[in-house]
Amino acid sequence: MSRDKKELDELSQLGKKDTKYIFDYDPSLLETFPNKHQENDYFVKFNCPEFTSLCPKTGQPDFATIYISYVPDKLMVESKSLKLYLFSFRNHGDFHEDCVNIIMKDLIKLLDPKYIEVWGKFTPRGGISIDPYCNYGRPGTKWEDVAQKRLFYHDMYPEKVDNR
Amino acid sequence: MSRDKKELDELSQLGKKDTKYIFDYDPSLLETFPNKHQENDYFVKFNCPEFTSLCPKTGQPDFATIYISYVPDKLMVESKSLKLYLFSFRNHGDFHEDCVNIIMKDLIKLLDPKYIEVWGKFTPRGGISIDPYCNYGRPGTKWEDVAQKRLFYHDMYPEKVDNR
Amino acid sequence: MSRDKKELDELSQLGKKDTKYIFDYDPSLLETFPNKHQENDYFVKFNCPEFTSLCPKTGQPDFATIYISYVPDKLMVESKSLKLYLFSFRNHGDFHEDCVNIIMKDLIKLLDPKYIEVWGKFTPRGGISIDPYCNYGRPGTKWEDVAQKRLFYHDMYPEKVDNR
Amino acid sequence: MSRDKKELDELSQLGKKDTKYIFDYDPSLLETFPNKHQENDYFVKFNCPEFTSLCPKTGQPDFATIYISYVPDKLMVESKSLKLYLFSFRNHGDFHEDCVNIIMKDLIKLLDPKYIEVWGKFTPRGGISIDPYCNYGRPGTKWEDVAQKRLFYHDMYPEKVDNR
Amino acid sequence: MSRDKKELDELSQLGKKDTKYIFDYDPSLLETFPNKHQENDYFVKFNCPEFTSLCPKTGQPDFATIYISYVPDKLMVESKSLKLYLFSFRNHGDFHEDCVNIIMKDLIKLLDPKYIEVWGKFTPRGGISIDPYCNYGRPGTKWEDVAQKRLFYHDMYPEKVDNR
Amino acid sequence: MSRDKKELDELSQLGKKDTKYIFDYDPSLLETFPNKHQENDYFVKFNCPEFTSLCPKTGQPDFATIYISYVPDKLMVESKSLKLYLFSFRNHGDFHEDCVNIIMKDLIKLLDPKYIEVWGKFTPRGGISIDPYCNYGRPGTKWEDVAQKRLFYHDMYPEKVDNR
Amino acid sequence: MSRDKKELDELSQLGKKDTKYIFDYDPSLLETFPNKHQENDYFVKFNCPEFTSLCPKTGQPDFATIYISYVPDKLMVESKSLKLYLFSFRNHGDFHEDCVNIIMKDLIKLLDPKYIEVWGKFTPRGGISIDPYCNYGRPGTKWEDVAQKRLFYHDMYPEKVDNR
Amino acid sequence: MSRDKKELDELSQLGKKDTKYIFDYDPSLLETFPNKHQENDYFVKFNCPEFTSLCPKTGQPDFATIYISYVPDKLMVESKSLKLYLFSFRNHGDFHEDCVNIIMKDLIKLLDPKYIEVWGKFTPRGGISIDPYCNYGRPGTKWEDVAQKRLFYHDMYPEKVDNR
Amino acid sequence: MSRDKKELDELSQLGKKDTKYIFDYDPSLLETFPNKHQENDYFVKFNCPEFTSLCPKTGQPDFATIYISYVPDKLMVESKSLKLYLFSFRNHGDFHEDCVNIIMKDLIKLLDPKYIEVWGKFTPRGGISIDPYCNYGRPGTKWEDVAQKRLFYHDMYPEKVDNR
Amino acid sequence: MSRDKKELDELSQLGKKDTKYIFDYDPSLLETFPNKHQENDYFVKFNCPEFTSLCPKTGQPDFATIYISYVPDKLMVESKSLKLYLFSFRNHGDFHEDCVNIIMKDLIKLLDPKYIEVWGKFTPRGGISIDPYCNYGRPGTKWEDVAQKRLFYHDMYPEKVDNR
Ligand SMILES: [Ca+2]
Ligand SMILES: [Ca+2]
Ligand SMILES: [Ca+2]
Ligand SMILES: [Ca+2]
Ligand SMILES: [Ca+2]
Ligand SMILES: [Ca+2]
Ligand SMILES: [Ca+2]
Ligand SMILES: [Ca+2]
Ligand SMILES: [Ca+2]
Ligand SMILES: [Ca+2]
Ligand SMILES: [Ca+2]
Ligand SMILES: [Ca+2]
Ligand SMILES: [Ca+2]
Ligand SMILES: [Ca+2]
Ligand SMILES: [Ca+2]
Ligand SMILES: [Ca+2]
Repeated sequence: MSRDKKELDELSQLGKKDTKYIFDYDPSLLETFPNKHQENDYFVKFNCPEFTSLCPKTGQPDFATIYISYVPDKLMVESKSLKLYLFSFRNHGDFHEDCVNIIMKDLIKLLDPKYIEVWGKFTPRGGISIDPYCNYGRPGTKWEDVAQKRLFYHDMYPEKVDNR
Repeated sequence: MSRDKKELDELSQLGKKDTKYIFDYDPSLLETFPNKHQENDYFVKFNCPEFTSLCPKTGQPDFATIYISYVPDKLMVESKSLKLYLFSFRNHGDFHEDCVNIIMKDLIKLLDPKYIEVWGKFTPRGGISIDPYCNYGRPGTKWEDVAQKRLFYHDMYPEKVDNR
Repeated sequence: MSRDKKELDELSQLGKKDTKYIFDYDPSLLETFPNKHQENDYFVKFNCPEFTSLCPKTGQPDFATIYISYVPDKLMVESKSLKLYLFSFRNHGDFHEDCVNIIMKDLIKLLDPKYIEVWGKFTPRGGISIDPYCNYGRPGTKWEDVAQKRLFYHDMYPEKVDNR
Repeated sequence: MSRDKKELDELSQLGKKDTKYIFDYDPSLLETFPNKHQENDYFVKFNCPEFTSLCPKTGQPDFATIYISYVPDKLMVESKSLKLYLFSFRNHGDFHEDCVNIIMKDLIKLLDPKYIEVWGKFTPRGGISIDPYCNYGRPGTKWEDVAQKRLFYHDMYPEKVDNR
Repeated sequence: MSRDKKELDELSQLGKKDTKYIFDYDPSLLETFPNKHQENDYFVKFNCPEFTSLCPKTGQPDFATIYISYVPDKLMVESKSLKLYLFSFRNHGDFHEDCVNIIMKDLIKLLDPKYIEVWGKFTPRGGISIDPYCNYGRPGTKWEDVAQKRLFYHDMYPEKVDNR
Repeated sequence: MSRDKKELDELSQLGKKDTKYIFDYDPSLLETFPNKHQENDYFVKFNCPEFTSLCPKTGQPDFATIYISYVPDKLMVESKSLKLYLFSFRNHGDFHEDCVNIIMKDLIKLLDPKYIEVWGKFTPRGGISIDPYCNYGRPGTKWEDVAQKRLFYHDMYPEKVDNR
Repeated sequence: MSRDKKELDELSQLGKKDTKYIFDYDPSLLETFPNKHQENDYFVKFNCPEFTSLCPKTGQPDFATIYISYVPDKLMVESKSLKLYLFSFRNHGDFHEDCVNIIMKDLIKLLDPKYIEVWGKFTPRGGISIDPYCNYGRPGTKWEDVAQKRLFYHDMYPEKVDNR
Repeated sequence: MSRDKKELDELSQLGKKDTKYIFDYDPSLLETFPNKHQENDYFVKFNCPEFTSLCPKTGQPDFATIYISYVPDKLMVESKSLKLYLFSFRNHGDFHEDCVNIIMKDLIKLLDPKYIEVWGKFTPRGGISIDPYCNYGRPGTKWEDVAQKRLFYHDMYPEKVDNR
Repeated sequence: MSRDKKELDELSQLGKKDTKYIFDYDPSLLETFPNKHQENDYFVKFNCPEFTSLCPKTGQPDFATIYISYVPDKLMVESKSLKLYLFSFRNHGDFHEDCVNIIMKDLIKLLDPKYIEVWGKFTPRGGISIDPYCNYGRPGTKWEDVAQKRLFYHDMYPEKVDNR
Repeated sequence: MSRDKKELDELSQLGKKDTKYIFDYDPSLLETFPNKHQENDYFVKFNCPEFTSLCPKTGQPDFATIYISYVPDKLMVESKSLKLYLFSFRNHGDFHEDCVNIIMKDLIKLLDPKYIEVWGKFTPRGGISIDPYCNYGRPGTKWEDVAQKRLFYHDMYPEKVDNR
């Protein structure tokens, strides 16, 4: 029932020796593998507490935890390639709100998922922290409606933040 | 894909030298920048744990964490200008319930957002703390209905408060 | 935009010298002030972790945190007068379930609010703690339906209690 | 407005001297008192972190926190009698899933409540813990539908359990 | 009211001496016992923080907490047999997403439950952790719709993860 | 090895029917029982989160958790009598610092303990909370030195307090 | 390097079929195995959150978490036999302070350890919880002094207890 | 045993009507009352989570929780006057390290305490937060040595800070 | 100032492709690298929450978090090799107390450290969890005395364990 | 009493416009200001949760929270310059243990402090996280002894780490 060798060999990054780490934004780092459970819709969530990018105006480093959740259709994103992709924001300058939207758009292009959402929780600058959240449901399917409903009821219980 | 120089130069406060801090209520401090992802509705939340104002009757300082969440249309609020605006309540006297409503109204005027909500969680006076919450959805759109629904289901799981 | 002097002078308890503390149940202690944001429905929550009353049968002191949330119409309850009112249960004997209902009824009579709910979380006696919750929406308005919905979905995620 | 002496005298267990503790399952220990707020539906929750029973096959003691929530109609369960009833499982052998269903059925029989739910959270055996949850709404009333809805949306955010 | 001896004797693993631990994937380890409360739908949740399997490509051990929730029909899974079944992944190689789907499918085959869901929360590799979630409602019943609704509203409040 | 009937009968409050609750400061409520393990020094701690008294100047109720720890010599304080004694501060006016010292002195007089300490953690007034701590070791014994050392190293890691 | 079969066979309870559970205090249930690391002093701690006994006067069940820490000399206590021993307090009546001292004395008799300590943290009765702590170092060794020092500096940072 | 009227009348701020709030640094706001327990050394701690001052170079508001602990000799600081004194930093510009030292020096001058310590925990600027700690023991007494020891062992277990 | 290529090349496991995972106890997996800061004693701690081994008598999997702290002399343990070594306990049977002692002894042999300690915190079996702790200071040095002192003051504040 | 203009003008980074962010290790970024409280030894702690560097062998980004505590003599480190210095590790490759030692050595060189300590808490790689800790007391002073004592008693209560 496990993945066979052929399936596994197609993953170029997982278990690779001499991985190169790219620190300029590069969506081509993302890789996929096939979803073996397409008969059943389900969620996959990635918790990514090691995200860092640069402020586009001041050049100062920003830090965030990024939460990515999606419902796969035919393709799934391989987690090591996702790590490399997120690393590629390291020397890239963009606003918090832009980073989160860009990540979602790149994953939509890669996976054509049924549903996806990206939530960034950044550390404060000047005593204020910013948490952008965007989502998407494939147009013309029930997931378009799901996306809207999840947006409508988003974050009704904000976590306690005290900057410590 | 990043913001270009022209876009960034229009932000007068971000990275500015010799910022002036105004401590009298002044909504003109707020600045905006354009939303580059208007094709997709999304949320932006600000966590502001450093809010302070004065009691209008006794003059005593009050303290709160303010949570602001909105769905942008064409404009987004720049976070450093938001910080300066919130600082301008420092020597301003108003009830907790009034502060929260005023902040929301100023941001509606500034941004004409699709949706916005403001939640203040104040520290106790006399053993009781007050947490006002207001929201708004643009009239005549689906967001008017969203605002009502979010209000109806607001805070059904109050956080544990023990004044310590 | 702040409250003017006349509005503030009508509050007899706030900032008052020589406040008298009444320890026998007395709903007449409650005072109101006008709602300046009637065009917009919003919530105000009070967190009251210093509630104490007596067991009506044994006379033993009981302790609770009381959470009160309401949507004001024309009137709002002034928080110092609410404190004095809650203090008036100090030497009053009633069951937990009764206290919570009485508080709600007194506030309905005082404020004629659009919506109100009261949740008491008491400390244990004999290894069991009791948490009554009641709510109300003004009959004939949409808030009557809101009250029912909030009751139906009340507390689906009970907090962990271990008596320590 | 408090309960009068006659009402209180009918409670045989509360404040009683020389309470007998029965450790064999005995639903006759349960006592009731009248609901004085029948005009208003409301919830009462009991947090019971001191539940213990025996494994029916091995005889080994089991431990749980039991959460009981109900909407009273005419009768309410007196909390000391509830404590004595729960103590009566002390030397009784039954599966976790059975205990939780039995408690609910006994309280339905006693109180004929509008709604009731019982959630048991047991400590682990063999690295796995079991949390049964059952509920009930009076047939033919809106509470039948409420029970179904609460079941459908039950525990969508499972608490973190790490066996420590 | 307890389970009788015959019912208990049919459970081959519970209280068994000399349990064999199988570390190669083996769904035949699962055992059932009859549901004595079929007149009432209810949930049973298993918290399993001691799950470990192998990465199918690198062979490296993976660790997770698995949460399993189901609504029984005629059969219930016996918890010690579930433990043995989960142990059988110990030397089995599969992706996180596959493990979670396989567990659910095996339990559907065993129990023919009305509803079931499985949520895996894995520890991070390369700074990212993966949390797959799948669910199922029996086709042609209301539980099919429940499954879809629970999927649509899954995990709207992601837990804070910081890899420490 | 258990306490015999005679030992237990001397405790007038434990399990007593019709306990009277005194709300004026009354140290005569305290009762003792003999220490059966005098050959071995050991600590007994009481956690008392339901303490309330009055402000001596304003008459306003104050609330605290009181932690009492002692090393018994010949006598031990019976916990129900301790509860009644702490209740007797309910309508008594004294500063936080005074209450904590008085409790310690009364227990020294009652028990002549080898060592005792009392720590009060009060809820805030005006945004500031006060936590007095006093201790005592029997003069001329090693416990006099212990008391000094424990005072010298008291509370080097203050708990986080945020008034919520 | 592992324990050999002979060593393991001497443990009568571990992995035993048909364990008998005794609910009357019985220290003869305790079993030992040899310490293979006697050249090096080290600590072993048992966390026992499932302790229950009876109040000697009222017969009411009491509940506690018991923490046992010891430095073995030649013998170590086998954990399943410790579990059975602690279960034997289930229908035994003794004060909290007595239970904790008895457990320590039984283990000293069994193991002749270099050092041992027992800390019980009980759930509240009447709003007050009791946490007794006793310890012992073998007389005439440095551990006698260690016991005294650990007693002198015991629990300088009491955990927050709020009875919820 | 309570404070008498004369003692209480000497406190000019406590319970005062029309308190003036001064927002320029003013140590003359501090008031004292006599220590009635001078025969026994003890600690008093103030938790002050509502401290705010200005950055001396940029004028930007800073926020901190200030923890003050002292051992009184003849005089004690009255808590409302302490609140007013801390408020007087509101429009005062000084580095974090300077504020904490100044507070301690002012209290030494006021109280001539046996021992005092002040710990400030500030919110972050630029991703880094600063926590200064200073202390003092009266020269020529054992408290001089205590101060040194407490400094030497200060904060060996830093709290987890993640800026959220 | 960084490590040069030669230093790095000597580490055979770090960044290696096709790592083999050994699941039988094998201390030869451990590798070292030179300590570049020998002029200064310092601590290195490893947090290892993914430890699993087998019960030597029943064969059942055990799980623990292992904390390893040491003061290096000339050699330091490379973390990937430590991971592989800990993985080698996966199919190895030993008591909790033995595993912790064996890990320490292997690291002493490998590193000849100045000081080392190993603390295992295992998940419960039968409601009881076991936490062994051992340490070592190089004989004839001040670290021998440090080891003894750290042992003497070990774990005076046991963490709260409730098996959930 | 505040810092005068001359003192403040010497700080080149604080409040500076157009700060340059250097991402190659550069200790020359550090700046100092004079200690105005040299008559009193005190601690200053920096909490730095936004540290990132590269693995020297694989080039993969590492993340940590760095805690820096020091007792100033004549000089203090300015916090914005410290931030810039820590940013300069962003593209620098070094082992965790080396980074922490280097930071301490650079600050010793800059400040000649009486005492300093640096603690790094890194996120896991391969399921294991590493927390190096080093400290220093000025040779020939009492702080040399303090450094040794603080090292000897370092981290006796390791925080719970579960990689989530
Ligand atoms: Ca926080
Ligand atoms: Ca709190
Ligand atoms: Ca609790
Ligand atoms: Ca509790
Ligand atoms: Ca846990
Ligand atoms: Ca976490
Ligand atoms: Ca974590
Ligand atoms: Ca708090
Ligand atoms: Ca608080
Ligand atoms: Ca608690
Ligand atoms: Ca509390
Ligand atoms: Ca934090
Ligand atoms: Ca924080
Ligand atoms: Ca726990
Ligand atoms: Ca647990
Ligand atoms: Ca964690």
